[in-house]
Order: sequence, then structure tokens, then C-alpha cells
Amino acid sequence: MVGRVHPFTFHNPTRLIFGRGQLSALEQEVPRGASVLLVYGGGSVKRPLAGGTSLYDGVLAHLSNVGATVTELSGVEPNPRLTTVRRGVDLCREHGVDLVLAVGGGSVIDCAKAVAVAAASDRDAWDLILDRSLVTGALPLGVVLTHAATGSEMNPISVITNWETSDKRGWSSPFAYPRFSILDPTFTLSVPRDQTAYGIVDMMSHVLEDYFDFTPNTPLQDRWSEGLLRTLVEVGPRLVADLSDLDLRETVMLCGTWAFNGVLSMGREGDWACHRIEHAISAVHDIPHGGGLSIIYPHWMEYVLEAHPARFAQLATNVFGVSALHRRDADVAREGVARLRAFWNSLGAPARLSHYGIGAEALPRIADLSTLRGETFGTVRPLGRDDALRVLERSL
Amino acid sequence: MVGRVHPFTFHNPTRLIFGRGQLSALEQEVPRGASVLLVYGGGSVKRPLAGGTSLYDGVLAHLSNVGATVTELSGVEPNPRLTTVRRGVDLCREHGVDLVLAVGGGSVIDCAKAVAVAAASDRDAWDLILDRSLVTGALPLGVVLTHAATGSEMNPISVITNWETSDKRGWSSPFAYPRFSILDPTFTLSVPRDQTAYGIVDMMSHVLEDYFDFTPNTPLQDRWSEGLLRTLVEVGPRLVADLSDLDLRETVMLCGTWAFNGVLSMGREGDWACHRIEHAISAVHDIPHGGGLSIIYPHWMEYVLEAHPARFAQLATNVFGVSALHRRDADVAREGVARLRAFWNSLGAPARLSHYGIGAEALPRIADLSTLRGETFGTVRPLGRDDALRVLERSL
Repeated sequence: MVGRVHPFTFHNPTRLIFGRGQLSALEQEVPRGASVLLVYGGGSVKRPLAGGTSLYDGVLAHLSNVGATVTELSGVEPNPRLTTVRRGVDLCREHGVDLVLAVGGGSVIDCAKAVAVAAASDRDAWDLILDRSLVTGALPLGVVLTHAATGSEMNPISVITNWETSDKRGWSSPFAYPRFSILDPTFTLSVPRDQTAYGIVDMMSHVLEDYFDFTPNTPLQDRWSEGLLRTLVEVGPRLVADLSDLDLRETVMLCGTWAFNGVLSMGREGDWACHRIEHAISAVHDIPHGGGLSIIYPHWMEYVLEAHPARFAQLATNVFGVSALHRRDADVAREGVARLRAFWNSLGAPARLSHYGIGAEALPRIADLSTLRGETFGTVRPLGRDDALRVLERSL
Repeated sequence: MVGRVHPFTFHNPTRLIFGRGQLSALEQEVPRGASVLLVYGGGSVKRPLAGGTSLYDGVLAHLSNVGATVTELSGVEPNPRLTTVRRGVDLCREHGVDLVLAVGGGSVIDCAKAVAVAAASDRDAWDLILDRSLVTGALPLGVVLTHAATGSEMNPISVITNWETSDKRGWSSPFAYPRFSILDPTFTLSVPRDQTAYGIVDMMSHVLEDYFDFTPNTPLQDRWSEGLLRTLVEVGPRLVADLSDLDLRETVMLCGTWAFNGVLSMGREGDWACHRIEHAISAVHDIPHGGGLSIIYPHWMEYVLEAHPARFAQLATNVFGVSALHRRDADVAREGVARLRAFWNSLGAPARLSHYGIGAEALPRIADLSTLRGETFGTVRPLGRDDALRVLERSL
């Protein structure tokens, strides 16, 4: 017999600081007198929290306590734009920034990662995103997380959109790991129902993208993937029914981080076709990533499951409790897809592109964008441009 | 509702290099021209592997390729001794060592950790072990793992025995994380059946020590703990039936590392009473740690389970599939204990202290040693000296 899981290296250097009241850790993590670029989004961080002060004010107070000077990059978009990254790089140069601090969700962190690596380079940010081998360093990056979804707080991955070319690109670099991430679930209490649901869809998708492949001999990764999914299947509906439940916020926040920090993908190839197609959609239509995944993922599963029915049946049985007794794997698998779709819909996540006003006429362009360089993508069943179009048509 | 899992920081800086053929990574990890202290045990690393050369020869060849000079600390004991640590520290000083490389299992790594921190200090190693706040640095530490058991390859924990005082002490320090660990399951192929079984008991015990506590709101940690245990319950019997199965070796090796690298204990208090009692046993009787745990753990469970029956019943149901229908938690829990004991015995691990020739007359001294400073220990049910004696008596 041969050991067959692919050789891998796991090295995640992020310091995860988790729990209520942990914001004060900023005073240990930010060097005294540092010049900090504070990166945030549309201003929700300025809303008062339960205690009366806002997260923004709390962060500034801790930074002030260590004598840091603060420059602000605000207005980071939900699908963060290259133009915003470039603005941040200019601010870093102008103010001699030595720490980038992202206060927000995945978009803010992704933007901050691109700023951090580009500010340490002579190259333009887009050059680095297109060719990660050009990345040779980064400013230190810290995170205060306000939304449980992307896992960006503990991974080296970022997604940036170039609107000039309708190109939404995922990229990663070992230099892009946050040095520290502060996760206090109370900061997620004001996330509205739809964003909460999309976050859960996003983290489940991250698990699924690595779960569906042909890598043999991954029982531990499988049990942990299924365990994380089952945790979300258990707590998700309770959370969208009571958004103020901090226990559930805490669990979902922890799940989001561990869904996509490298543990579940150890030695696996993964597939990632759905993320590719969703990025193509949201490079043209500015829709929430989790909403797009909720639509595409089940249709993709139905389109490809005959290529590897045992694996899809395993999800159905081990996560959704579908009986496999006296049944073909593919039938068990299809029942699992239906259960997954119904689960996401029950949280309030959409099932059809029409939810976002996207019609048949938009699909050929999206299919083109998903295979910009004519390549196939995915591993369970490699997809070309016409396959992408077919998955999109099923999703109308 | 309140978020109740204890605040925690997770930061594991070890670079885990996993898979067949990864030994050559030494040439990336060891700096050119380094002075290396090579730490190993009784010489099993010098036995030829399937390819004809030994692991020892392979390591020396890679070190030679990067121009490293090598000093050897060999003969590290199964329960590594303070005297050996001191010998290693002397060698580090004498030869200007700048990297400690442990090639072996948990004992060799634990010894190398103590050498690495003591060589960077003016203090004697035992002072540092008794008071970890005195540890202020360490020589860089690398690992080539040859036995799946303790998890020492990816945690900051070490256990050293001072035979002069019959004191076996666990200690840890953030400085004691290995910088890198190379895990090639082919290096575990020659581990005999009993050591293989003890390793599985040891890693399962690490999971259980954190699983049994009163920390609320830990569903993800629970599902992952149960998933790792179920993986070992599935593959363990197959591996002891065919020790040459590399797929199973691979799975068990991965489980050993992730059982005890900080992930499953996130935010948890844990209990750790059984490790305390087992350390007291093996500070007097030089028995295998996993063998001692296999005896003590089920008896401890029976002794304390009425203090928290729901938790023990959860193990029974979620790991061993014991039905909870129409039954009291404590009864479900007891059936789970019986299943755990039977499982370990089926691997060849012992159930009674008599297996090692330990009789009633030895127990008072062991009970004394488990509460050297008169303190109680454990959290599910805090134990004093007489409780320890009672658990030991049940284990005769």
C-alpha cells in the first residue's frame, strides 16, 4: 500500500486572538509610536456598539494609547477595487506607514492585504496580483474582524476586482498572512440577516470546494470538514432567527476562520470551479459573493456529480443524514444537493440568478470571463466555457 | 445570551512538512554551514529503511549537502531524563550549536526542546522546567518524526523526568515550538505493534483530556474532537492488523499531530487529571506513557462521570454510536467507557497495572507523587491525593 495524500506544507503564522473584550490586545500587537494605515469600509464601524462607543472609536483609543499615528483608507467596497488599493499604497508611501490595520470584513482585509504587499514593492499592485512570484515582502498587517464569512483573517488569500477590465482575481502570497487577527463576536452583532446568511454560505462553500476532489486517504480532513458543516447546519437557522445570540455569533465566527485557513485543505487538490464562476458573475454584476455561491453551488453539484458520485453521496450522508441504504450513490448525492439548497434558502440566501435581475442575455459574457484564457478549470470534472454556460443556464 | 467560550489566543508557528519524500526539505530548513546538535534515541534510526539506507544516514547526507557540522546527543531515554538534557546543553555550549535537530519520537523531541531552551539561558534546565517564566529564548529546533503519538512535533510542550527526585514534569513555553517538523509516514513503518497501539492511546487521550470539561459553547471543537477520535477508531484496528499499510500510517501520523497542537483546546479548560496520575506512575515505574494511560483513563472516567454525565454520554454517542434512546446519561456514559476500554484492549494496550507488575503496595507512593504540593487537580471533578489512590486501586 502507498501513502497517497499529496505531500503538503502547513504553516499558518497568524496570531488568532479570539473572544469578548480582546480589542485591547491592539496595545500589545501595535508597536509603540507606529504609523498605522487604518483600512475600513462604508462607515458601519462608526455605529455605536452596545456599550455606547463605536468600534472605530475603540480602535482609535487603543492606537492612541500606544502613541500610534493614524492615516485612514476608508470607503473600501464590498468587492474591493484596484483603484482603492492604489489609493492605499499612495497613502502608505506618503505617511511612512509601518503597519496596515484592517477593521472590517473580508473585503476590507483583502484590500488591506493588497495594499500591504504593494506598499513593500516598486511594482504596481495589479502586476503583483497577476504574478504572485513578484511579491517579495509586505508591511505587517493586523485585523479586527467585523463579519464572519471569508476566512481572510487567517489566510494569505485576497480577491481584488479591476473594473477597467472586468477582472476579479483571487491571489495569495505567504507574505499576505495577517500578523494578528482580533475576533470578538460582539463586533458581528449588527451584521444584518442577509449578510449573516451569505457569510454562512461563503464559509460552507470554502469547505465544499476542498471536499470535492479525488484525493485519496483523507479521513481526518473529511471528518473535520463534515463536522464544521454540521456545526453550521445546526447553528445557522438559530442565528438567523435570533441575530442577537452571541453564543451563536461566536460559533459562526470560529467556523468562518477555520473553514479556510489551510487545515481542511491539507494534502488536497480541491476543485474551486464555483468560486471561479461566481467571481466571473460578480466581476460584471456587483452582487454579494455568498449570494452568488448560494445560487451556483447546488447547480454545479448536479452538473458534475456523476463524475464522482461516491464523494457527493458522502456529503449527503455525513452532513445531512441522508440514508444510503439500498440506493445508488448518485441518487443519495442528488438528495444531498436538494438538502443543501433548501438549507441555504431557509437562511434567506437565493437560489436563482433572477433574484439579482440577471437574465439569460448576461450569461455568455459571464461564461467568457470564467475562462478568460481559454483554459478548463475544476478537478471533479474539468469545465470549459460551454460547461460554465450550462451551469449558469441552470441557475437562471 | 452571552458568548461564553473562554477567550483564547491561537498561534502555532511550526512549519509542518508532511508526506513521503519530504526529508530533503532539511536542505531548505537548515541554514548553510550551521552547527547542528543531532538528538536521537537508542539507535533505531540507524536501521536500514526499505530503500537500504537508514534515516540516520539520510539525515546526515542532507546536512552534509548544506555544509552543516554535526554534534550528536544519542541515547535519549523513552522517559527522557534531566541528566541527558544537561549533557545536551553542555554539547551546545562546547560546539557553538545554532540548530537542534530531533530525529525520533516524542521523547527525543521533548528532550531536544529542553536542550534548546536551556542552551539559550544561564539557568540550569531544571530551574526552567519548574518555572517557565524564566525561559526567555531558545535555539531553533527542527524535528524529523519517527513515531506517531505525543504531538510534540507541533506543540510547545515537553515532559522531562528528574530521577533524583522521582519528579516527571510537563512544561511548555512559546519558545519551545519546533520551527519545522518533517513528517514522512514511511519513517514510522518499523514501529512495532505495541508502540503503535500506545501511540494511538496517547493521541486519543490528548483529545479526551480537553474534551471533558465544563466549557460551554464548543460545538466546533467537539465535532472535530469526535471526528479525530472516530478516525482513529476506524483505522487503528486495521493498522495493528497490518503494520505495513502506509495509508493507515499516514492517517495516524496526521491525527497524532492535530490531536495536540492547540486546535482542539481552543477556548477550553480541559481536565488533564489522567496525565497527572500517569506521570506519577511512570516517574517511579519506567512504563510506556500510552500503556499507563490505557489503564488509568477508563477508570478515571468511571470515577468522575457522575459529575458531568452529559459530556461522557456525548462521547459514547458521537464516537462509539451508543444509543441514548430512553436512557439516563450516566448509563450511556458507562457504556461509552466500556467501549473505549475494549477498543484500546483490542489494539493490544493493557487494562490493568498488574500488566506492568505494579501491585497495591506501590500505589500510596504514586498517589503522593500525583499531588506533590498537596493541591487538587482536574476540573470535571477536582481530585485530591485520596481520589488519585482510589483511581489507582480500581486500576490494579
